[in-house]
Amino acid sequence: MGDATEKGGRHPAEGSVEHLGELALVDLISNLCAQSEAGNLDLVGIGDDAAVVAAPDRRVVVSADMAVAGRHFRTDWSDARHIGVRVAAANLADIAAMGAQPTNFLLSLGLPRSTEVSWVLDLVRGVVAETMRAGAVVAGGDVVGAQEIIVAGTALGDLAGRSPVRRSGAVAGDQIAVAGRLGWAAAGLAVLTRGFRSPRALVDAHRQPEPPYQAGVQAGVSGAHAMIDVSDGLLLDAARIARASMVEIDIESALITVAEPIAAAAAAYNLDPLQWILGGGDDHAFLAAFAPDAPLPDGFTRIGQVRAHTSAMSAMADGANPVTGWVTVDGKTPEGSAGYAHFS
Amino acid sequence: MGDATEKGGRHPAEGSVEHLGELALVDLISNLCAQSEAGNLDLVGIGDDAAVVAAPDRRVVVSADMAVAGRHFRTDWSDARHIGVRVAAANLADIAAMGAQPTNFLLSLGLPRSTEVSWVLDLVRGVVAETMRAGAVVAGGDVVGAQEIIVAGTALGDLAGRSPVRRSGAVAGDQIAVAGRLGWAAAGLAVLTRGFRSPRALVDAHRQPEPPYQAGVQAGVSGAHAMIDVSDGLLLDAARIARASMVEIDIESALITVAEPIAAAAAAYNLDPLQWILGGGDDHAFLAAFAPDAPLPDGFTRIGQVRAHTSAMSAMADGANPVTGWVTVDGKTPEGSAGYAHFS
Repeated sequence: MGDATEKGGRHPAEGSVEHLGELALVDLISNLCAQSEAGNLDLVGIGDDAAVVAAPDRRVVVSADMAVAGRHFRTDWSDARHIGVRVAAANLADIAAMGAQPTNFLLSLGLPRSTEVSWVLDLVRGVVAETMRAGAVVAGGDVVGAQEIIVAGTALGDLAGRSPVRRSGAVAGDQIAVAGRLGWAAAGLAVLTRGFRSPRALVDAHRQPEPPYQAGVQAGVSGAHAMIDVSDGLLLDAARIARASMVEIDIESALITVAEPIAAAAAAYNLDPLQWILGGGDDHAFLAAFAPDAPLPDGFTRIGQVRAHTSAMSAMADGANPVTGWVTVDGKTPEGSAGYAHFS
Repeated sequence: MGDATEKGGRHPAEGSVEHLGELALVDLISNLCAQSEAGNLDLVGIGDDAAVVAAPDRRVVVSADMAVAGRHFRTDWSDARHIGVRVAAANLADIAAMGAQPTNFLLSLGLPRSTEVSWVLDLVRGVVAETMRAGAVVAGGDVVGAQEIIVAGTALGDLAGRSPVRRSGAVAGDQIAVAGRLGWAAAGLAVLTRGFRSPRALVDAHRQPEPPYQAGVQAGVSGAHAMIDVSDGLLLDAARIARASMVEIDIESALITVAEPIAAAAAAYNLDPLQWILGGGDDHAFLAAFAPDAPLPDGFTRIGQVRAHTSAMSAMADGANPVTGWVTVDGKTPEGSAGYAHFS
């Protein structure tokens, strides 16, 4: 913990970041992150101008993500540790969605002066825990002052010699399959929005998603044709695969299991549970296209198929709805809003 | 430029990001960044869940940085392009300070709804230009809504089989040398703070630093013992090398050239120019330790030497001043504040 020991009998995690000061805060954060660094000691970790991390494959998979308090998370609905888990999960899932093993995470924090040090350390604990759950280590970052809490992450990953699984590789006839939860986080958000804190399983799913990283990696190992992390909703993310691959994707609603907590919450609010399952993001499930006869890796369930992109559907393409013309449910164009847009 | 062409005769770069919408903004930004991607086309660029970039060395050097409007840059003092250059330079310099060639940059932006699209695109143009100047390409990023403008970057680099140049390798007897400007950005900031816009050379140095990336790389090639990017001031960053290496560093003021614009501005404001040269950051010069008899790479000038860390100096170590006990100027402990601290 270096220089950041107690001053005048007060524990450094008490009080605000302004009181503690930047250098001592960085020491405390670095110490937490160092827990995840075992096994990587031959390389350079936190404390130099940059980290040096292994890239055994001669390529590195990399993705950056930014989350802002009040927009991507709410400090009154989620505790700091859960926020750390969520932000790290969103970023690390992007790596696994390429079929790559997450290897490293970098964390940059913008913090108002009044932020409690203990809150910051809990957030870092969540980031470290989720990074380790993904099989990766925290390799560095930055801490600066800001008006609102900003959490920016960069995740790195390794392909172990495989081709990356892109959005653009789906072909007509492919199976469409999903690994992980659909709609749980959205249902949890609906519960919280209504002022409730239960069903706990849904609220927890919103607070702390559990991307099935290894299923993403295994999809890469088994030669998935295309894959995406479902972060903005099944329909919208399926449309991204369809557009990139110039195909249509049909989801069969009969293949989608409505989990009990979602069914119960939908009944309680008199809503169609498919609204959450088809439109809800933030669970970070993996949606992938596999060859028609390919056995699906553990964790994946078939929910539809890829069809040739017909000129008829093309003609229906609608600028206002990014799903129309690319994704159908039971052969029909889905209605309603289908995803999340920033600035609106 | 894809879908982001003119709508109703209005050019998309007119108006705010809220008016344009996130997807169209990302299209415009991606198009600008793609300019830097030539030569990297065998790998995966912007538009998938993650990018795939080359890491020929089987290791990757990586560093993350965050800059906040009003703290790290001022939109009334610098135009957007300069801000983009500054943020990218600060991040890319961290890579070259390890002796590594910068290879990639990821850019995450937090933007208030009212931000002008043209301003954002100019910032991205600055990021792309500086990234290309460093010999790297923009590989991805994120755009989100925020209350204030936040620019978060992650830079990657390649060591080409060399050992990273860390802060901790300086040994007694080493030459201390610097490549790049010292005090120019600080003098430029002093000029701007006083409400002036000239001398232009100093103001430009503040707005748009020019880290000598290739000198950093060459320091690595020539086996520098230790190196740091001077981002918080010569004394403070020299103290970081000294602490990490458990040595003392003595700067010889006679070896430091006071450039004419700095001398002139210091005379005009009745200040000691050494205050800027020893204490000013943000020029992103490279400060390195080389073996006593080593020829210095192009761009480096000797400004001092490394001494054994004496117990006498150690006893002087002062928690309130991170320089005391580690760095001397002409054999004496420097006085006054020596660097920048966040949250204060």
